[in-house]
Amino acid sequence: MFSSASQASVGRSLAGLETPCLVLETRRLARNVSRLKTHLEPFAVRFRPHLKTAKSAEVARVVTDELAAPLTVSTLREAEYFLEHGFSDLLYAIGIAPNKLEHVFDLRRRGAELSIVLDNIEMARLVAARCAERSDPLPVLIEIDTDDHRSGIKPRDPVLVEVGRALHEGGAVLGGVMTHAGSSYGLKGAAAFAERAEQERSGAIAAAEALRGAGLPCPEVSVGSTPTAHFARDLAGVTEVRAGVFMFFDLVMAGIGACSLDDIAISVLASVVGHQRDKGWILIDAGWMAMSRDRGTARLSVDQGYGIVCDLGCDPIPDLIVIDANQEHGIIAHRSGLGPLPNLPIGTMVRILPNHACATAAQHDRYHVTTDGSIVSAIWPRIYGW
Amino acid sequence: MFSSASQASVGRSLAGLETPCLVLETRRLARNVSRLKTHLEPFAVRFRPHLKTAKSAEVARVVTDELAAPLTVSTLREAEYFLEHGFSDLLYAIGIAPNKLEHVFDLRRRGAELSIVLDNIEMARLVAARCAERSDPLPVLIEIDTDDHRSGIKPRDPVLVEVGRALHEGGAVLGGVMTHAGSSYGLKGAAAFAERAEQERSGAIAAAEALRGAGLPCPEVSVGSTPTAHFARDLAGVTEVRAGVFMFFDLVMAGIGACSLDDIAISVLASVVGHQRDKGWILIDAGWMAMSRDRGTARLSVDQGYGIVCDLGCDPIPDLIVIDANQEHGIIAHRSGLGPLPNLPIGTMVRILPNHACATAAQHDRYHVTTDGSIVSAIWPRIYGW
Repeated sequence: MFSSASQASVGRSLAGLETPCLVLETRRLARNVSRLKTHLEPFAVRFRPHLKTAKSAEVARVVTDELAAPLTVSTLREAEYFLEHGFSDLLYAIGIAPNKLEHVFDLRRRGAELSIVLDNIEMARLVAARCAERSDPLPVLIEIDTDDHRSGIKPRDPVLVEVGRALHEGGAVLGGVMTHAGSSYGLKGAAAFAERAEQERSGAIAAAEALRGAGLPCPEVSVGSTPTAHFARDLAGVTEVRAGVFMFFDLVMAGIGACSLDDIAISVLASVVGHQRDKGWILIDAGWMAMSRDRGTARLSVDQGYGIVCDLGCDPIPDLIVIDANQEHGIIAHRSGLGPLPNLPIGTMVRILPNHACATAAQHDRYHVTTDGSIVSAIWPRIYGW
Repeated sequence: MFSSASQASVGRSLAGLETPCLVLETRRLARNVSRLKTHLEPFAVRFRPHLKTAKSAEVARVVTDELAAPLTVSTLREAEYFLEHGFSDLLYAIGIAPNKLEHVFDLRRRGAELSIVLDNIEMARLVAARCAERSDPLPVLIEIDTDDHRSGIKPRDPVLVEVGRALHEGGAVLGGVMTHAGSSYGLKGAAAFAERAEQERSGAIAAAEALRGAGLPCPEVSVGSTPTAHFARDLAGVTEVRAGVFMFFDLVMAGIGACSLDDIAISVLASVVGHQRDKGWILIDAGWMAMSRDRGTARLSVDQGYGIVCDLGCDPIPDLIVIDANQEHGIIAHRSGLGPLPNLPIGTMVRILPNHACATAAQHDRYHVTTDGSIVSAIWPRIYGW
């Protein structure tokens, strides 16, 4: 899959790599995983990590500690890939479209215990009918809207029971309810996350009770987002928790208080390729193609541009950020636009912490894995597309 | 490389595809290519199209009409890929970093007539020394800053001659000068583009004259950006023109008057997966992973959100845009946030015109090619990464 040059990078120091490239620090990854698992342990819930951020079987193995552990995925391509790598218990957590149903049934024929989600009566009827035609009782979770953020049915909307009944009385399996408090990304601090976690939990429970009150089954109550999963104080009635970006964390998560800068496990390695001294600019070879166009910190109290500039050891260089980006050029400057610049001669290598781990990792086809932060111990491929 | 399901999509109508996916209309592509070639023909300059947008050998063949035509590339991965597909005359147009030089020499040993660019004396000396060591007289273009936009040496900066001398008197070949008027993306209309094209031309010529006046060779004068290439009125003294995004065009180019909406050759096919009627939202399965995070129209007079929503025939639905996006969800709404919505039932398929073709195409691993706008005639792979 990779060129021989890439495979030859195993055993080299980061300073010996060709830039730009994506670096993954496994000590940070392992610590992030351990922290969330430790927090969730007392609640006796199933943990179903979301692999949309990592899109890598090797990362999935670190996160799960076991083969065949349950995973959440964001595309059927991910479902296919993780199935091929031994993970068969999969939740595809995006509302299903009619044109994906054949692919879903095909993956189930190939051994995937794949569940899907939906939030409307039209798809519920269509899915139930297709399940009956196929004689495949596909498990479906009904998506619940607990925070007005995006998709889902409100817990007390009468449509919820109608959807449940269409699934249960048709050919599908009513697997339960799921919700994602995506609005938690717009909050800040432990107290606010804990409150939103309780809103997520109580909304999902209310939906489950509405289904049960109508005589319908609701075995699963699945909740989760990185901020709510980490700060939930009560998960009574919840059967399953999902989270994804926590594996790597990023500047948005640090900016809202969900992690600290030294929890961020991925960075983009880049080289200084030019100076525009009259403007206070240092040019690097990591532009938006390497960082993504995500500007998630623009709406936070501290805007980190396209990322925080660190030295090769991943220590932030004070007040140095990537203030602008073209396709393959990044422009480094003092965050004030005017402050003093460190001496970074042509060829200096830096590491950039990303705004949004999901978006930045998606720009790369592999991780340059390092345990000690300086030597490449492995190359882990990642997938993309649909 | 692709699943059998994907190959089986050849011959299907767009309505039969799995979403999201990237659609390329070859009639629009061919018309865009023809328009620029016709404009450039009277000037008798070499055309070196930039393949950073397309990253596809099949697209390169449409654009060039001939094998072995000169190309511009933005990564050494592109250089490698196009070399393997018969294109050997390549300009890598990003200022070179020291850690890429071995890769450059390796590509040249493998048959690439590869040129590089740089804009500082440190790299000029290093490149000249490495060329001498390798006995490989690598052609180098000096990057010139003609518009204060990003990188390059000012035409009248004495460093220019110093850099030229270091290359020429060392082991490299001083190939000439190159510039890119990236600031043209911030202008609007033919007159402004023509003026910036003249500034680009005259700046590059001034730099060439400075080198020649110092007794140095400057055979090549390479200029270009999509807006300046299309509206240049004089290219006297210029030997080569580069442009990339014109192949596909996008909403940013339409917004500044460099093309019209029906020139845009790529779109993202998506499905309606939900409704939030109280909010005036229609949910689709194309989020920022399919569209990219590029919000290039946010700074223009008309903000197109994450893209303009079209029907299956690629006709825009009045005032309907993607107002927000999560990883795999797009939110469609009336551009006012309040206006009436068309009836788009669950499963309806739409096509989204992108803000920025380079960024959106980069999110996909293949083009679903259509000549007539409705039947898939081919699948063309595209590359990514470095």
